[in-house]
Amino acid sequence: MRILVFGGTGYIGSHTCIELAARGHDLVVADNLSNSSPRVLERLQAIIGAPLAFRNVDLRDREATRTLLAGAGFDAVVHFAALKAVGESCERPLDYFDNNITGTLNLLQAMREAGVARLVFSSSATVYGDPERVPVDEDAPLRVTNPYGRTKLVMEQLIADLCSAEPGFQAGVLRYFNPVGAHGSGLIGEDPGGVPNNLMPYICQVAVGRRPALSIYGGDWPTVDGTGVRDYIHVLDLARAHADALDTLERTGAGFTVNLGTGTGVSVLQLVQAFERASGRAVPYEIVGRRPGDVAEVYADPARAQSLLGWRATLDVDAMCRDAWRWQSMNPTGYAEPG
Amino acid sequence: MRILVFGGTGYIGSHTCIELAARGHDLVVADNLSNSSPRVLERLQAIIGAPLAFRNVDLRDREATRTLLAGAGFDAVVHFAALKAVGESCERPLDYFDNNITGTLNLLQAMREAGVARLVFSSSATVYGDPERVPVDEDAPLRVTNPYGRTKLVMEQLIADLCSAEPGFQAGVLRYFNPVGAHGSGLIGEDPGGVPNNLMPYICQVAVGRRPALSIYGGDWPTVDGTGVRDYIHVLDLARAHADALDTLERTGAGFTVNLGTGTGVSVLQLVQAFERASGRAVPYEIVGRRPGDVAEVYADPARAQSLLGWRATLDVDAMCRDAWRWQSMNPTGYAEPG
Repeated sequence: MRILVFGGTGYIGSHTCIELAARGHDLVVADNLSNSSPRVLERLQAIIGAPLAFRNVDLRDREATRTLLAGAGFDAVVHFAALKAVGESCERPLDYFDNNITGTLNLLQAMREAGVARLVFSSSATVYGDPERVPVDEDAPLRVTNPYGRTKLVMEQLIADLCSAEPGFQAGVLRYFNPVGAHGSGLIGEDPGGVPNNLMPYICQVAVGRRPALSIYGGDWPTVDGTGVRDYIHVLDLARAHADALDTLERTGAGFTVNLGTGTGVSVLQLVQAFERASGRAVPYEIVGRRPGDVAEVYADPARAQSLLGWRATLDVDAMCRDAWRWQSMNPTGYAEPG
Repeated sequence: MRILVFGGTGYIGSHTCIELAARGHDLVVADNLSNSSPRVLERLQAIIGAPLAFRNVDLRDREATRTLLAGAGFDAVVHFAALKAVGESCERPLDYFDNNITGTLNLLQAMREAGVARLVFSSSATVYGDPERVPVDEDAPLRVTNPYGRTKLVMEQLIADLCSAEPGFQAGVLRYFNPVGAHGSGLIGEDPGGVPNNLMPYICQVAVGRRPALSIYGGDWPTVDGTGVRDYIHVLDLARAHADALDTLERTGAGFTVNLGTGTGVSVLQLVQAFERASGRAVPYEIVGRRPGDVAEVYADPARAQSLLGWRATLDVDAMCRDAWRWQSMNPTGYAEPG
């Protein structure tokens, strides 16, 4: 298939490019590089061992998006391009609506005009908010608690409304739980700008000496050890799910929404301990107060992804930590030149 | 106040212009005229007795919207510009998201850049979906059932997120029930294109001979006479509420969300009978099957609007029918030249 990967230089997008290329698909990577580095492209080409077509396009630019799609003969689009920081979304909601919702709308319009009818979309477990029970399946109530989550939910609904209006249009909506880890080459990985919002990159930056200690928000949650429990999933498993999702859309002609998680909850302290084992480094931490909006325990019921896509996660927490650490130790400052 | 009325040539927008002008505000009317006639402007100027500034701007055009706001010294914006047909929204969801959500986003960004921090926004009782109980107050669960409703809810949430992020920004969100009626001059009124989606314009077109009979969807609802019950509100009451909302924002500096309805449910048959009395015309009808998605009974609890805005509806169903009929009989083909 000829596939447009929008947001293809980001963390999950870049890993997915490798999987798609390995399956023989013909890729065009598009990104505005607002939250990713052009070096990702060099690294991707080194891993893939072939040139990779790249277009610097901002989804908010309707004409540029239209031009990118028109007559390019894409069979499908994988759409990763979105802002994703909860705190920032509360401070700059208009930017989040603009990047995420307007961007998705422009993409869908451009797809319609170009006759591209197959989409794989990056959603998030954030659409479940604070779930009533775990594991969370796809029929759980959707209730978002911040502007970022709201944009994810609205994008899902926009896609669903389009699928209802145009039965020829098919979408695979993937609700990620907590992606971590990196490619085994150590050449690409997660490289957040500023203070990491997510646990694993924070741990990595502590282990590599960029930050003094990890703050753990809350040690009194009703969980195995008092720290919050999440469903961490290796980015390579996630990448494989995107390729499986595309295959499923092509094979069945029917859209779907599936959770992508391992089905296993892991606490913050468990992840820290696994990371210390995998890296041989100490990760000093302190337990501080809970953050508003956080919840005790969220992990996936991944059964639907298994039955519809034939996909399940195979890499465990040790692999996640080992690969995250390889990436971080080989690239202490991420994609930036060491300063 | 100097006020930008976006969507000011539409049905509710045009009536609101009259009320705002009567209160001495300085108005600029903007509209893309996609769903309204330029004749509205001539009629408005005749009623107001003064020239009215008009700008042909499409809210989807970010630059044009920004230019309209920049340095224009507006104290507030009243935002009516949106598509509003449920059935059409199911067929063309992207257009609805684009016009309504992207448009609102562009407006809010332009307001921020221009330092305009006061907004009155047209929302709808559609955000309540099929309410659990009537009367419906503003704390009822929000659950929309179609793309049009979804866009209204998302616009409300976008505005709320912006108000949270920027405490200086204040919005009055007005949830209309079922606006009907027209200005007493008979010069302006509701002029839907194509087959009317709403009951009153349909009744008017039957009474004036443009359509043979009214179809009433469902005669077996659990209501007073088996037909659906709604909360019809005179557009002049609604127009007054917008002016009161602006005054309230200025006086209190605090945003709000209020229902705008009479608090009284009226059935389809009751409205038909009132219209026949007011017009002296027969309105032939037939009762047909229910439409999917319709509900038995929706009417407002308008108490919050009374307590916050000091507003309540004063015009009854007889006035609504009399004024709707005056408009329709004086303008049998609406704003179009009789063909």
